[in-house]
Amino acid sequence: MGNTLKSMRTQAEKIFQASLKAVDPIVAVKNYLKIDGNNIVLQGKSFPINSFDNIYLIGFGKAAAAMARGVEEVLGDSLKAGIVNVKYDHLDKVSSKIQINEAGHPVPDEAGIKGTGEIIDLVKNCSEKDLVICVISGGGSAIFPSPQEGITLAEKQETTRLLLSCGADIKEINAIRKHISRVKGGQLARIVQPATLITLILSDVIGDPLDSIASGPTAPDETTFEDCLAILEKYQLLGEIPATVEKHIKSGAKKLIPDTPKINDPSFSKVDNVIVGSNWQAVIAAKECAENFGYNTLILSTFVEGETKDVARVHAAIAKEVLKTGNPIKLPACIISGGETTVTIKGKGLGGRNQEFVLAAAMDIHELKNVVVLSAGTDGTDGPTDAAGAIADGETIFRAKQKNLNTLKYLQNNDSYHFFEQLNDLIKTGPTNTNVMDLRLLLVK
Amino acid sequence: MGNTLKSMRTQAEKIFQASLKAVDPIVAVKNYLKIDGNNIVLQGKSFPINSFDNIYLIGFGKAAAAMARGVEEVLGDSLKAGIVNVKYDHLDKVSSKIQINEAGHPVPDEAGIKGTGEIIDLVKNCSEKDLVICVISGGGSAIFPSPQEGITLAEKQETTRLLLSCGADIKEINAIRKHISRVKGGQLARIVQPATLITLILSDVIGDPLDSIASGPTAPDETTFEDCLAILEKYQLLGEIPATVEKHIKSGAKKLIPDTPKINDPSFSKVDNVIVGSNWQAVIAAKECAENFGYNTLILSTFVEGETKDVARVHAAIAKEVLKTGNPIKLPACIISGGETTVTIKGKGLGGRNQEFVLAAAMDIHELKNVVVLSAGTDGTDGPTDAAGAIADGETIFRAKQKNLNTLKYLQNNDSYHFFEQLNDLIKTGPTNTNVMDLRLLLVK
Repeated sequence: MGNTLKSMRTQAEKIFQASLKAVDPIVAVKNYLKIDGNNIVLQGKSFPINSFDNIYLIGFGKAAAAMARGVEEVLGDSLKAGIVNVKYDHLDKVSSKIQINEAGHPVPDEAGIKGTGEIIDLVKNCSEKDLVICVISGGGSAIFPSPQEGITLAEKQETTRLLLSCGADIKEINAIRKHISRVKGGQLARIVQPATLITLILSDVIGDPLDSIASGPTAPDETTFEDCLAILEKYQLLGEIPATVEKHIKSGAKKLIPDTPKINDPSFSKVDNVIVGSNWQAVIAAKECAENFGYNTLILSTFVEGETKDVARVHAAIAKEVLKTGNPIKLPACIISGGETTVTIKGKGLGGRNQEFVLAAAMDIHELKNVVVLSAGTDGTDGPTDAAGAIADGETIFRAKQKNLNTLKYLQNNDSYHFFEQLNDLIKTGPTNTNVMDLRLLLVK
Repeated sequence: MGNTLKSMRTQAEKIFQASLKAVDPIVAVKNYLKIDGNNIVLQGKSFPINSFDNIYLIGFGKAAAAMARGVEEVLGDSLKAGIVNVKYDHLDKVSSKIQINEAGHPVPDEAGIKGTGEIIDLVKNCSEKDLVICVISGGGSAIFPSPQEGITLAEKQETTRLLLSCGADIKEINAIRKHISRVKGGQLARIVQPATLITLILSDVIGDPLDSIASGPTAPDETTFEDCLAILEKYQLLGEIPATVEKHIKSGAKKLIPDTPKINDPSFSKVDNVIVGSNWQAVIAAKECAENFGYNTLILSTFVEGETKDVARVHAAIAKEVLKTGNPIKLPACIISGGETTVTIKGKGLGGRNQEFVLAAAMDIHELKNVVVLSAGTDGTDGPTDAAGAIADGETIFRAKQKNLNTLKYLQNNDSYHFFEQLNDLIKTGPTNTNVMDLRLLLVK
């Protein structure tokens, strides 16, 4: 392998590390939540600490403990108390003021319900002179469960199962979910009022939609009980879903109980929802690092979805055009994309979407000089493997042939892990305690 | 539909028309082959007409008759005679000096062999004071068949069938094909020497590889008889393939007969191979037209391959990023891509890769304001339909719902034609007499 290619590979790994650093939960919180004198400053907006009687911290999600630690490092003694729900074993060092509740994920459990109840109790009686800081990350929906009174967790899950089986789309399912919860769809904001609420969000959803991340507990909801009833009618689920759920939705549709708060609801008059870490921050950090290495950079998209191996082909096609005509960007080029692809599993191998992306791309960039491709999950875990992703270049297929590896068969068997393991080209970071989906890099010189 | 969106749709169609014009076979030939005084000028290189005793025209491919007409329009009386092989019914107006042979495609036939023999006879005795102009377009390999002596068309086809069935890749199949032909793999150039040879090519292959388009009859070949023997051994086809083919390849491997000419072969000392029309020219014409409409343009890649609906998702992801952050290019944006995708047919509907691209993209750009997507084949035919492609925008799915069309079901049934037919959103051009693969446009304002 030539020195240029070797250094490009090292640069690709360093660019990925720079991305990870930008979306570390503690770093992400501290990038946005700052202290200036006696003020808390959030994106240029000042909150005088002395104007608050109490500052509380609540939170939920896989990275909530680490985010809580970030808030503590910023606020120190100003913080009075806090409770956060996290996934089992997703702990971090926090002070004794912060209570950590472990809860079930991806299937919510009673521990989650209990913890959610405690969080609600902490903030429901806040006055207008209190400040609540809420930290939210991926997994926050399951980890912060609170079905409406009379509805059990099992009934909630049965409702979701029925909706899925009759072909309801994710928007429809989320509308129902929000309306049978006490906290989702902006209802947590209603509970917190009249206190001031700052929500810091680590997003694992494409496009960072505030009403979707963790089911949007502090963001306005666009859906209504009437919508929910129409969805149940559309899929002929009346009489099929648990009676408690049906009764609750019908009561809502008759306006007997309040709907989720809408955009002009006073619950949001003192709320700031801020995305402190997302795929975008990871991509921007990659861009800056690549520019420091002298690359021209192109952010392709943070919205990338689709079947992994075909998404990989499009990326490889771009590398070919860069080499041939200097489009869409001139050499030396670093093309960056984010989002999250899918893999339709047909084989019995071991791998993940990032490793499969690199394997498929490797086949298309075969024999191209000075092209490097890297794809990795920012959570450090790609599929059911101990790798975050993989790295390849125009010589990868040659090296595979030397080891008698049939690349196409590894791809067809979804066995990217064992392919890259034998080439020593897996990217391993260990768990990163964050998750803002995936990062893909294409370096061309 | 708003006026902005309406005008964007019109612009998208005009941009596609501008692309088509640039790759019209006659226009393409005349863009590159010019007369300046008493010289033929080709990309700045002059060929004094008076220095030649005779100027002949030969050619083969689906667009060869139209390309021949272009050459006639440039050279006029200077041209002495010509013969071109075309696909049945792919005629064009040429003078009586040009003989047109119709031949079988995609399956070669005896008429093709006869026509190829006539072309060989026309140029095989040329002197060093003759000029041969050769026009080549897609389909040229089947339309210009000439198996080595003793090998029949049927034996040639059986060889290809056996190679395909044992998993040989396209490079391996082409190596064998070239070595059992009298003209492919640069051998036509050897026949034409010592005359001067100008080959004008309309490319329908991704990346425009000279040794692949129409099996590279006037370009150096990289493969050898030894390679061919190794391929037959690799797939255990010795004793399986027709005896005449095996005997010929073994003779070649023993150096009893000459190999295809390599890059330094004197056969190429007076040869110019020029791509006069390709996906690139279509894309560049689109770029210029879009810039005239005021768009910032980004050429994504002319190398795009992969499963259509997933390639579409990547394009839609880019539109979303353009709208959200102005990456990879600022508004108003026109993103252009070329190449040729594939469709894995699972349904029983009617459609083509371009129409399916637009259908899949339409779902992902649903509700986005002022986004238009167009994809169409430059040959005017998309799949087994009378449409070249289709056009959609962020309101397309709404309009489909109003007509009670279930978009996802049309996509799953590969029935994009009937979907867009009902919305009146098919792009119909009729046969264009050219083919440089597909053009995809994404307009975002």
